[in-house]
Amino acid sequence: MSRLDSFIRRLEAQRQCLGEAARLAADLPGIVLELGLGNGRTFDHLRTLCPDREIYVFDRQVAAHPDCIPAPDRLFLGDFDATLPAALQRLGRGRAALVHVDLGSGDAAASRALAAAIAPAVAELMASGAVLVSDQEMAASGLGPLPVPPGVERGRYFMAVRA
Amino acid sequence: MSRLDSFIRRLEAQRQCLGEAARLAADLPGIVLELGLGNGRTFDHLRTLCPDREIYVFDRQVAAHPDCIPAPDRLFLGDFDATLPAALQRLGRGRAALVHVDLGSGDAAASRALAAAIAPAVAELMASGAVLVSDQEMAASGLGPLPVPPGVERGRYFMAVRA
Ligand SMILES: C[S@@+](CC[C@H](N)C(=O)[O-])C[C@H]1O[C@@H](n2cnc3c(N)ncnc32)[C@H](O)[C@@H]1O
Ligand code: NI
Ligand code: NI
Repeated sequence: MSRLDSFIRRLEAQRQCLGEAARLAADLPGIVLELGLGNGRTFDHLRTLCPDREIYVFDRQVAAHPDCIPAPDRLFLGDFDATLPAALQRLGRGRAALVHVDLGSGDAAASRALAAAIAPAVAELMASGAVLVSDQEMAASGLGPLPVPPGVERGRYFMAVRA
Repeated sequence: MSRLDSFIRRLEAQRQCLGEAARLAADLPGIVLELGLGNGRTFDHLRTLCPDREIYVFDRQVAAHPDCIPAPDRLFLGDFDATLPAALQRLGRGRAALVHVDLGSGDAAASRALAAAIAPAVAELMASGAVLVSDQEMAASGLGPLPVPPGVERGRYFMAVRA
Protein backbone atom coordinates (compact mmCIF):
# COMPACT_ATOMS: atom_id res chain seq x y z
CA MET A 1 0.00 0.00 0.00
CA SER A 2 1.49 3.34 -1.04
CA ARG A 3 1.43 6.45 1.10
CA LEU A 4 -1.24 7.79 -1.26
CA ASP A 5 -3.40 4.71 -0.57
CA SER A 6 -2.77 4.96 3.12
CA PHE A 7 -3.55 8.68 3.22
CA ILE A 8 -6.84 8.16 1.38
CA ARG A 9 -7.77 5.43 3.86
CA ARG A 10 -6.99 7.70 6.79
CA LEU A 11 -9.18 10.49 5.39
CA GLU A 12 -12.00 8.09 4.64
CA ALA A 13 -11.77 6.60 8.13
CA GLN A 14 -11.88 10.12 9.54
CA ARG A 15 -14.93 11.00 7.47
CA GLN A 16 -16.78 7.79 8.36
CA CYS A 17 -16.07 8.17 12.08
CA LEU A 18 -17.16 11.82 12.09
CA GLY A 19 -20.38 10.91 10.28
CA GLU A 20 -21.08 8.08 12.70
CA ALA A 21 -20.36 10.33 15.70
CA ALA A 22 -22.72 13.02 14.40
CA ARG A 23 -25.47 10.39 14.03
CA LEU A 24 -24.83 8.92 17.49
CA ALA A 25 -24.91 12.35 19.12
CA ALA A 26 -27.80 13.67 17.03
CA ASP A 27 -30.27 13.82 19.94
CA LEU A 28 -27.81 15.11 22.50
CA PRO A 29 -27.75 18.91 22.85
CA GLY A 30 -24.31 20.47 23.03
CA ILE A 31 -21.42 22.07 21.31
CA VAL A 32 -18.71 20.56 19.11
CA LEU A 33 -15.00 20.77 19.87
CA GLU A 34 -12.33 20.43 17.19
CA LEU A 35 -8.84 19.97 18.63
CA GLY A 36 -6.39 20.60 15.82
CA LEU A 37 -7.58 23.00 13.12
CA GLY A 38 -4.76 22.30 10.67
CA ASN A 39 -5.90 23.38 7.24
CA GLY A 40 -9.52 23.32 8.33
CA ARG A 41 -10.80 20.35 6.31
CA THR A 42 -12.43 18.51 9.20
CA PHE A 43 -13.65 21.78 10.73
CA ASP A 44 -15.41 22.43 7.43
CA HIS A 45 -16.76 18.88 7.43
CA LEU A 46 -18.07 19.25 10.99
CA ARG A 47 -19.83 22.48 9.98
CA THR A 48 -21.71 20.60 7.28
CA LEU A 49 -22.45 17.62 9.58
CA CYS A 50 -23.61 19.78 12.51
CA PRO A 51 -24.88 23.04 11.00
CA ASP A 52 -26.87 23.93 14.13
CA ARG A 53 -24.16 23.41 16.71
CA GLU A 54 -21.57 25.88 17.92
CA ILE A 55 -18.13 24.59 17.00
CA TYR A 56 -15.12 25.62 19.11
CA VAL A 57 -11.69 25.09 17.63
CA PHE A 58 -8.35 24.64 19.40
CA ASP A 59 -4.96 25.11 17.77
CA ARG A 60 -1.71 26.78 18.57
CA GLN A 61 -1.87 28.67 15.29
CA VAL A 62 -4.25 29.45 12.46
CA ALA A 63 -2.89 28.00 9.24
CA ALA A 64 -6.19 27.03 7.66
CA HIS A 65 -7.63 27.72 4.24
CA PRO A 66 -9.17 31.25 4.33
CA ASP A 67 -12.68 29.77 3.98
CA CYS A 68 -12.15 27.57 7.03
CA ILE A 69 -11.12 29.97 9.77
CA PRO A 70 -13.39 29.96 12.80
CA ALA A 71 -14.82 33.19 14.21
CA PRO A 72 -12.48 34.68 16.83
CA ASP A 73 -14.91 33.94 19.67
CA ARG A 74 -14.98 30.26 18.66
CA LEU A 75 -11.23 29.87 18.60
CA PHE A 76 -8.99 28.84 21.50
CA LEU A 77 -5.58 29.85 20.27
CA GLY A 78 -2.53 28.49 22.06
CA ASP A 79 -1.15 25.27 23.47
CA PHE A 80 -3.77 22.71 24.63
CA ASP A 81 -2.07 22.92 28.07
CA ALA A 82 -3.41 26.42 28.41
CA THR A 83 -6.51 26.41 26.20
CA LEU A 84 -8.25 23.30 27.58
CA PRO A 85 -8.36 24.70 31.14
CA ALA A 86 -9.47 28.05 29.69
CA ALA A 87 -12.27 26.29 27.79
CA LEU A 88 -13.36 24.42 30.92
CA GLN A 89 -13.63 27.73 32.70
CA ARG A 90 -15.31 29.66 29.91
CA LEU A 91 -17.62 26.95 28.50
CA GLY A 92 -18.06 24.78 31.58
CA ARG A 93 -17.95 21.02 32.12
CA GLY A 94 -20.02 18.57 30.15
CA ARG A 95 -21.02 20.98 27.38
CA ALA A 96 -19.72 19.08 24.33
CA ALA A 97 -21.81 16.54 22.43
CA LEU A 98 -19.09 15.72 19.93
CA VAL A 99 -15.32 16.12 20.08
CA HIS A 100 -12.78 15.52 17.33
CA VAL A 101 -9.11 15.26 18.25
CA ASP A 102 -6.70 15.17 15.31
CA LEU A 103 -3.15 15.60 16.54
CA GLY A 104 -1.35 13.49 13.98
CA SER A 105 2.10 14.90 13.60
CA GLY A 106 4.74 12.72 12.02
CA ASP A 107 6.02 11.75 15.49
CA ALA A 108 3.91 8.81 16.70
CA ALA A 109 5.32 8.73 20.25
CA ALA A 110 4.81 12.46 20.77
CA SER A 111 1.24 12.24 19.42
CA ARG A 112 0.44 9.39 21.81
CA ALA A 113 1.89 11.30 24.76
CA LEU A 114 -0.07 14.41 23.87
CA ALA A 115 -3.30 12.41 23.52
CA ALA A 116 -2.73 10.90 26.97
CA ALA A 117 -2.02 14.32 28.47
CA ILE A 118 -5.17 15.98 27.15
CA ALA A 119 -7.60 13.04 27.57
CA PRO A 120 -8.77 13.95 31.12
CA ALA A 121 -9.61 17.56 30.18
CA VAL A 122 -11.35 16.40 27.00
CA ALA A 123 -13.44 13.94 29.02
CA GLU A 124 -14.42 16.71 31.45
CA LEU A 125 -15.61 18.90 28.59
CA MET A 126 -17.89 16.12 27.27
CA ALA A 127 -21.54 15.61 28.21
CA SER A 128 -22.73 12.18 29.27
CA GLY A 129 -23.34 10.29 26.02
CA ALA A 130 -21.06 12.59 24.02
CA VAL A 131 -18.91 11.00 21.35
CA LEU A 132 -15.15 11.41 20.88
CA VAL A 133 -13.48 10.79 17.52
CA SER A 134 -9.68 10.81 17.53
CA ASP A 135 -6.62 9.93 15.54
CA GLN A 136 -5.01 8.52 18.70
CA GLU A 137 -6.47 6.03 21.13
CA MET A 138 -7.61 8.09 24.13
CA ALA A 139 -8.24 6.77 27.61
CA ALA A 140 -9.52 8.68 30.63
CA SER A 141 -11.82 8.03 33.52
CA GLY A 142 -15.39 8.22 32.19
CA LEU A 143 -14.44 7.42 28.59
CA GLY A 144 -15.31 4.04 27.08
CA PRO A 145 -14.22 2.81 23.67
CA LEU A 146 -16.76 2.59 20.84
CA PRO A 147 -16.35 0.39 17.77
CA VAL A 148 -15.48 2.27 14.58
CA PRO A 149 -17.93 1.98 11.66
CA PRO A 150 -17.65 -1.06 9.41
CA GLY A 151 -15.12 -0.42 6.67
CA VAL A 152 -12.76 1.48 8.94
CA GLU A 153 -9.67 -0.56 9.66
CA ARG A 154 -9.05 -1.10 13.39
CA GLY A 155 -6.36 1.20 14.72
CA ARG A 156 -6.64 3.76 11.93
CA TYR A 157 -9.08 6.04 13.77
CA PHE A 158 -10.75 5.82 17.17
CA MET A 159 -14.09 6.48 18.80
CA ALA A 160 -15.16 6.65 22.43
CA VAL A 161 -18.24 7.63 24.43
CA ARG A 162 -18.52 9.56 27.68
CA ALA A 163 -20.28 7.57 30.40
CA MET B 1 -19.53 19.16 -0.25
CA SER B 2 -17.01 19.92 2.50
CA ARG B 3 -13.34 20.52 1.92
CA LEU B 4 -12.71 17.07 3.39
CA ASP B 5 -15.05 15.52 0.79
CA SER B 6 -13.47 17.54 -1.96
CA PHE B 7 -9.93 16.64 -0.91
CA ILE B 8 -10.77 12.93 -0.81
CA ARG B 9 -12.25 13.20 -4.31
CA ARG B 10 -9.10 14.92 -5.57
CA LEU B 11 -6.85 12.20 -4.15
CA GLU B 12 -9.07 9.46 -5.53
CA ALA B 13 -9.13 11.13 -8.94
CA GLN B 14 -5.34 11.38 -8.80
CA ARG B 15 -5.01 7.70 -7.89
CA GLN B 16 -7.44 6.56 -10.59
CA CYS B 17 -5.74 8.64 -13.29
CA LEU B 18 -2.27 7.43 -12.30
CA GLY B 19 -3.47 3.82 -12.38
CA GLU B 20 -5.08 4.31 -15.79
CA ALA B 21 -1.93 6.01 -17.13
CA ALA B 22 0.27 3.16 -15.90
CA ARG B 23 -2.00 0.66 -17.67
CA LEU B 24 -2.10 2.69 -20.90
CA ALA B 25 1.68 3.06 -20.96
CA ALA B 26 2.40 -0.49 -19.81
CA ASP B 27 3.90 -1.60 -23.14
CA LEU B 28 5.81 1.59 -23.83
CA PRO B 29 9.40 1.56 -22.61
CA GLY B 30 10.57 4.68 -20.86
CA ILE B 31 11.08 6.57 -17.65
CA VAL B 32 8.58 8.26 -15.36
CA LEU B 33 8.68 11.95 -14.48
CA GLU B 34 7.07 13.36 -11.34
CA LEU B 35 6.81 17.17 -11.35
CA GLY B 36 6.01 18.27 -7.82
CA LEU B 37 7.34 15.95 -5.11
CA GLY B 38 5.51 17.66 -2.25
CA ASN B 39 5.30 15.21 0.59
CA GLY B 40 6.01 12.33 -1.75
CA ARG B 41 2.66 10.55 -1.72
CA THR B 42 2.26 10.26 -5.47
CA PHE B 43 5.97 9.55 -5.93
CA ASP B 44 5.49 6.60 -3.59
CA HIS B 45 2.39 5.55 -5.49
CA LEU B 46 4.22 5.73 -8.82
CA ARG B 47 6.98 3.53 -7.39
CA THR B 48 4.42 0.86 -6.59
CA LEU B 49 2.64 1.25 -9.98
CA CYS B 50 5.86 1.22 -12.02
CA PRO B 51 8.41 -0.74 -9.97
CA ASP B 52 10.63 -1.38 -13.00
CA ARG B 53 10.84 2.14 -14.34
CA GLU B 54 13.32 4.85 -13.40
CA ILE B 55 11.41 7.73 -11.80
CA TYR B 56 12.85 11.25 -12.01
CA VAL B 57 11.46 13.85 -9.66
CA PHE B 58 11.34 17.64 -10.00
CA ASP B 59 10.78 20.10 -7.18
CA ARG B 60 12.29 23.30 -5.95
CA GLN B 61 12.75 21.75 -2.55
CA VAL B 62 12.68 18.41 -0.80
CA ALA B 63 9.97 18.48 1.85
CA ALA B 64 8.80 14.88 1.52
CA HIS B 65 8.29 12.18 4.10
CA PRO B 66 11.71 10.62 4.84
CA ASP B 67 10.63 7.31 3.22
CA CYS B 68 9.72 9.12 0.00
CA ILE B 69 12.86 11.01 -0.94
CA PRO B 70 14.26 10.12 -4.37
CA ALA B 71 17.91 9.17 -4.83
CA PRO B 72 20.04 12.28 -5.55
CA ASP B 73 20.69 11.20 -9.14
CA ARG B 74 16.94 10.93 -9.75
CA LEU B 75 16.16 14.38 -8.42
CA PHE B 76 16.08 17.64 -10.41
CA LEU B 77 16.20 20.21 -7.65
CA GLY B 78 15.29 23.80 -8.50
CA ASP B 79 12.71 25.78 -10.39
CA PHE B 80 11.11 23.98 -13.34
CA ASP B 81 12.41 26.89 -15.49
CA ALA B 82 15.90 25.60 -14.96
CA THR B 83 15.39 21.90 -14.33
CA LEU B 84 13.23 21.03 -17.36
CA PRO B 85 15.88 22.26 -19.83
CA ALA B 86 18.51 20.46 -17.73
CA ALA B 87 16.47 17.25 -17.92
CA LEU B 88 16.06 17.62 -21.68
CA GLN B 89 19.80 17.88 -21.97
CA ARG B 90 20.69 15.11 -19.54
CA LEU B 91 17.92 12.60 -20.31
CA GLY B 92 17.14 13.53 -23.91
CA ARG B 93 13.88 14.08 -25.78
CA GLY B 94 11.08 11.53 -25.88
CA ARG B 95 12.35 9.38 -23.02
CA ALA B 96 9.33 9.49 -20.71
CA ALA B 97 6.47 6.96 -20.92
CA LEU B 98 4.48 8.52 -18.09
CA VAL B 99 4.52 12.02 -16.61
CA HIS B 100 2.66 13.29 -13.56
CA VAL B 101 2.40 17.03 -13.01
CA ASP B 102 0.99 18.07 -9.62
CA LEU B 103 1.48 21.80 -9.10
CA GLY B 104 -1.57 22.52 -7.00
CA SER B 105 -0.80 25.49 -4.87
CA GLY B 106 -3.72 27.43 -3.41
CA ASP B 107 -3.43 29.99 -6.21
CA ALA B 108 -5.45 28.71 -9.18
CA ALA B 109 -4.36 31.41 -11.64
CA ALA B 110 -0.67 30.93 -10.83
CA SER B 111 -1.01 27.15 -11.18
CA ARG B 112 -2.66 27.52 -14.59
CA ALA B 113 0.05 29.92 -15.75
CA LEU B 114 2.79 27.59 -14.54
CA ALA B 115 1.18 24.61 -16.28
CA ALA B 116 1.02 26.58 -19.54
CA ALA B 117 4.66 27.62 -19.18
CA ILE B 118 6.01 24.11 -18.66
CA ALA B 119 3.72 22.23 -21.08
CA PRO B 120 6.02 22.50 -24.15
CA ALA B 121 9.07 21.15 -22.28
CA VAL B 122 6.98 18.38 -20.75
CA ALA B 123 5.71 17.40 -24.20
CA GLU B 124 9.28 17.31 -25.53
CA LEU B 125 10.33 14.95 -22.75
CA MET B 126 7.53 12.51 -23.62
CA ALA B 127 7.77 9.57 -26.01
CA SER B 128 5.15 9.11 -28.68
CA GLY B 129 2.24 7.37 -26.94
CA ALA B 130 3.35 8.52 -23.50
CA VAL B 131 0.65 9.53 -21.04
CA LEU B 132 0.47 12.76 -19.04
CA VAL B 133 -1.55 13.01 -15.83
CA SER B 134 -1.92 16.48 -14.35
CA ASP B 135 -3.81 18.55 -11.84
CA GLN B 136 -4.05 21.38 -14.40
CA GLU B 137 -5.27 21.15 -17.97
CA MET B 138 -2.14 21.16 -20.14
CA ALA B 139 -1.96 22.05 -23.80
CA ALA B 140 1.06 21.95 -26.08
CA SER B 141 1.81 21.02 -29.63
CA GLY B 142 1.86 17.21 -29.83
CA LEU B 143 -0.34 16.72 -26.76
CA GLY B 144 -3.93 15.52 -27.15
CA PRO B 145 -6.47 15.24 -24.34
CA LEU B 146 -7.49 11.81 -23.05
CA PRO B 147 -10.71 11.09 -21.19
CA VAL B 148 -10.28 10.52 -17.45
CA PRO B 149 -11.41 7.15 -16.07
CA PRO B 150 -15.08 6.68 -15.26
CA GLY B 151 -15.82 7.89 -11.74
CA VAL B 152 -13.44 10.84 -12.00
CA GLU B 153 -15.34 14.08 -12.19
CA ARG B 154 -14.48 16.14 -15.28
CA GLY B 155 -12.16 19.00 -14.46
CA ARG B 156 -10.84 17.49 -11.24
CA TYR B 157 -7.78 15.85 -12.83
CA PHE B 158 -6.53 15.68 -16.41
CA MET B 159 -4.96 13.22 -18.80
CA ALA B 160 -3.30 13.66 -22.19
CA VAL B 161 -1.33 11.58 -24.67
CA ARG B 162 1.71 12.48 -26.75
CA ALA B 163 1.10 12.08 -30.46
C1 LIG C 1 0.91 19.87 -4.62
S1 LIG C 1 2.61 19.67 -4.32
C2 LIG C 1 2.92 18.07 -4.94
C3 LIG C 1 2.29 16.96 -4.11
C4 LIG C 1 2.77 15.58 -4.45
N1 LIG C 1 2.47 15.20 -5.83
C5 LIG C 1 2.20 14.56 -3.49
O1 LIG C 1 1.30 13.80 -3.86
O2 LIG C 1 2.65 14.52 -2.35
C6 LIG C 1 3.36 20.77 -5.48
C7 LIG C 1 4.86 20.82 -5.45
O3 LIG C 1 5.31 21.50 -6.60
C8 LIG C 1 6.46 22.26 -6.28
N2 LIG C 1 6.56 23.38 -7.22
C9 LIG C 1 5.60 24.29 -7.50
N3 LIG C 1 6.03 25.17 -8.42
C10 LIG C 1 7.31 24.83 -8.73
C11 LIG C 1 8.28 25.35 -9.63
N4 LIG C 1 8.03 26.43 -10.37
N5 LIG C 1 9.47 24.74 -9.69
C12 LIG C 1 9.73 23.65 -8.92
N6 LIG C 1 8.84 23.10 -8.07
C13 LIG C 1 7.64 23.69 -7.98
C14 LIG C 1 6.24 22.72 -4.86
O4 LIG C 1 7.47 22.94 -4.21
C15 LIG C 1 5.43 21.53 -4.26
O5 LIG C 1 6.26 20.67 -3.53
NI1 NI D 1 -11.37 28.70 -1.33
NI1 NI E 1 7.38 6.53 7.80
